[in-house]
Amino acid sequence: MSDIEDDVLDEAAGGQSGEARDSYALDDTLLGKLRTAVDIGDPAAIDALITPLHPADIADLLEQVSPPVREAWLKLWPSNIDGAVLSELYGDLREEVIGLLPDAVLTDAVRDLDSDDVVDLVEDLEDDQQEAILDFLHPTERAAVEQALSYPEDSAGRLMQREVVAAPEHWTVGEAIDYMRAHKRELPEQFYHLILTDPRMKPTGYVTLGRIMSSARKTPLTDLVEDSFRAIPATQHEDEVAYAFNQYHLISAPVVDDDGRLVGIITIDDAMIVLDEANEEDILRLAGVDGESSLNDRVIDTTKRRFPWLFVNLITAILASLVISQFEEAIAQIVALAVLMPIVASMGGNAGTQSLTVAVRALATKDLTRSNLMRVVMREAGVGLINGAVFAVVMGVIGLAWFGSAMLGVVIAVAMVINLLVAGLAGILVPVVLDRLKVDPALASGAFVTTVTDVVGFFAFLGLAVLLLL
Amino acid sequence: MSDIEDDVLDEAAGGQSGEARDSYALDDTLLGKLRTAVDIGDPAAIDALITPLHPADIADLLEQVSPPVREAWLKLWPSNIDGAVLSELYGDLREEVIGLLPDAVLTDAVRDLDSDDVVDLVEDLEDDQQEAILDFLHPTERAAVEQALSYPEDSAGRLMQREVVAAPEHWTVGEAIDYMRAHKRELPEQFYHLILTDPRMKPTGYVTLGRIMSSARKTPLTDLVEDSFRAIPATQHEDEVAYAFNQYHLISAPVVDDDGRLVGIITIDDAMIVLDEANEEDILRLAGVDGESSLNDRVIDTTKRRFPWLFVNLITAILASLVISQFEEAIAQIVALAVLMPIVASMGGNAGTQSLTVAVRALATKDLTRSNLMRVVMREAGVGLINGAVFAVVMGVIGLAWFGSAMLGVVIAVAMVINLLVAGLAGILVPVVLDRLKVDPALASGAFVTTVTDVVGFFAFLGLAVLLLL
Repeated sequence: MSDIEDDVLDEAAGGQSGEARDSYALDDTLLGKLRTAVDIGDPAAIDALITPLHPADIADLLEQVSPPVREAWLKLWPSNIDGAVLSELYGDLREEVIGLLPDAVLTDAVRDLDSDDVVDLVEDLEDDQQEAILDFLHPTERAAVEQALSYPEDSAGRLMQREVVAAPEHWTVGEAIDYMRAHKRELPEQFYHLILTDPRMKPTGYVTLGRIMSSARKTPLTDLVEDSFRAIPATQHEDEVAYAFNQYHLISAPVVDDDGRLVGIITIDDAMIVLDEANEEDILRLAGVDGESSLNDRVIDTTKRRFPWLFVNLITAILASLVISQFEEAIAQIVALAVLMPIVASMGGNAGTQSLTVAVRALATKDLTRSNLMRVVMREAGVGLINGAVFAVVMGVIGLAWFGSAMLGVVIAVAMVINLLVAGLAGILVPVVLDRLKVDPALASGAFVTTVTDVVGFFAFLGLAVLLLL
Repeated sequence: MSDIEDDVLDEAAGGQSGEARDSYALDDTLLGKLRTAVDIGDPAAIDALITPLHPADIADLLEQVSPPVREAWLKLWPSNIDGAVLSELYGDLREEVIGLLPDAVLTDAVRDLDSDDVVDLVEDLEDDQQEAILDFLHPTERAAVEQALSYPEDSAGRLMQREVVAAPEHWTVGEAIDYMRAHKRELPEQFYHLILTDPRMKPTGYVTLGRIMSSARKTPLTDLVEDSFRAIPATQHEDEVAYAFNQYHLISAPVVDDDGRLVGIITIDDAMIVLDEANEEDILRLAGVDGESSLNDRVIDTTKRRFPWLFVNLITAILASLVISQFEEAIAQIVALAVLMPIVASMGGNAGTQSLTVAVRALATKDLTRSNLMRVVMREAGVGLINGAVFAVVMGVIGLAWFGSAMLGVVIAVAMVINLLVAGLAGILVPVVLDRLKVDPALASGAFVTTVTDVVGFFAFLGLAVLLLL
């Protein structure tokens, strides 16, 4: 099978591969070697291939091998799969791999992880798998994980790490350093700020480690606090958290409970993952694909996930056909109408998609607000009118040249202007209204806008034809 | 104007606004107050409103006010616009604001910034504006900026910060701390790692500040190095850099020149911005919108930016019309064909968009490789066949019920299966081939796939109709 794949790609690329932009692609030969090691059943060879890899790359390998190879690999030599690798796997594949691992490997894997990573690992698992993994944890660790799981899904509370390095706000640099040296075993693996708290454990500011390290021991910590400090409520949605990190260039931020007390910390690496996933979800949803889907889903799952959008599109298309059917007589008399009508609808659909994508993104990045809505709507109308006018002239000429009828040219030209104007307006107003109604505009805008541009496109073109040509 | 906007939105939302998910939206009343302060010409009021804001929020405000208000605001009171605010502005708006600022404000603004931020600020400016800003810099700073500008656009060299905290690899924790205390004035504002170098200035590892702070003074730094260490070549494309940060959860990474010597450092906050912009560009390109466009572009610029995609779509649509025109006779005899034909094409277009979006993203995240291509292609074919079969049955029944012809039902059903299968295959193969040919698949796949599904959809449906119905 691998030969066929290589041939397909080599042919397409003229044998070239994309070094300059592909510095981090996995070595193509690695997979072949792994497959061979699995085929001959050589655990030592597998271990030698996998051990040097970063957990994220091991996870990518698990995704890229075929299911039978994956199963044989994990049966022969599961020991390279630790908690970090499991954390890098997503969706169904994570459940599959967990199901294939022996209990001993799984126990080591989860005991190895920080509490926030365990939460991330188990929160999407089926109940029985989740229960089994929690059983592997020490009781205190388990309590911490269950506490985190009590926060709403996709909240800051789920995302945060509970191991926090905090100090009373009246301490000096020297006191902070001595404290950290004395408690080095309890410090989290990665931390960038020391959080200052008041006596009631409310965070009041933070100091970067670089500042502490470069200041004299007697300096009060309060002299060194950063002005970018922002505390995040534990119940805040993770997309908002990611927005705050991106907008305010935060590196880490303390998380507080309803009473404002420090309960954890979120670091930028986790926020980056959330932002990336939110963007990915938007991209897929705009194309009518369930944001949760992955290349490793089974055919039947993928089919089910894509079906709803296609079904919605079918309704849309039938609506458009109903419009056309009102003009059967006109089409029977002038078949050129049937030839040209998809052009008007298709141009409207594309212009609408342009506008709605810009609007959906501007809503996601909070750039489209009440204050500039009217200006943006006017802009889209202007763009639709100008592009509509240009394409009206082009299509008018084509209509005239192709079918020798000046009036047909006028009909298609006027329909084009109308539909591109409507496309621009619908493209901006539909997402804004959906957003206000708390419906995800990335998910639902496309269907509405396409319906509008199809219906308006066919109706304007065929209606004008009846008025002007018959 | 503001009243009208509020009314539109209130109506749409039933008067509700989205607190839960809108923690970081700007206060709606702020803009009104700013507008009033500008109208009555009160600089003190403007200053009082703007000073408490984060630079990113000031930049958002600059984006959201109308151009005349912006101009009047900056004429009355430009002093809140510092380097950080300018860095947060994008595209044409940055040039506009720079053009409106007095030289004195601009000088302070750019002298305030780190060299990497100055590079980021000036690299997209027109030559004369860039020259003017470089003139404001001190000579050493200017040399640093010009050196960075000598790296290729969108490279790690442009992204990196030149202020690096490095130490010889044989040092101890105590030596490192003493060095940092002695040089506190030269330390960058934010840093998270101490980079270890060999005598030839090649980075050999790094140590987190947390590790240094919690270790005894006599500990050798080499005992504390992180295993996530990766050096980045200065010529590497910034998208690859962002991928590496995301894939390997890096917080900062040293940048090296062709000889492997340390020349700078990139931190995760900059990588996060690059990743976010790359995603944004992909989203917009998939919808046929130039990735550079913003809500603040002028109508005429936006029109020009959207025109090319619409023009490509026009060619596509005309191709499809040419296919239809081959079947004019059939349509003249059975007008139902004209009514139903857009359904087949539209379903194919949507299924193709689903597949191509998944493929484009999988290429961007390096999840789609030679190793799993054939499996993914087979999967798309399977999904297309199954969904095609389901919709074939649905449409066959509708065709029969609507037009009372069983054979018409069969024609539309078979055409549906063919087009959804083709859509799945084209959706995956077109982006893969474009990627191999080094054409951005996000930009160009849509046009090719839509052409395929339109042409195949109309041809299969009308061709089968000729064979089976006439």
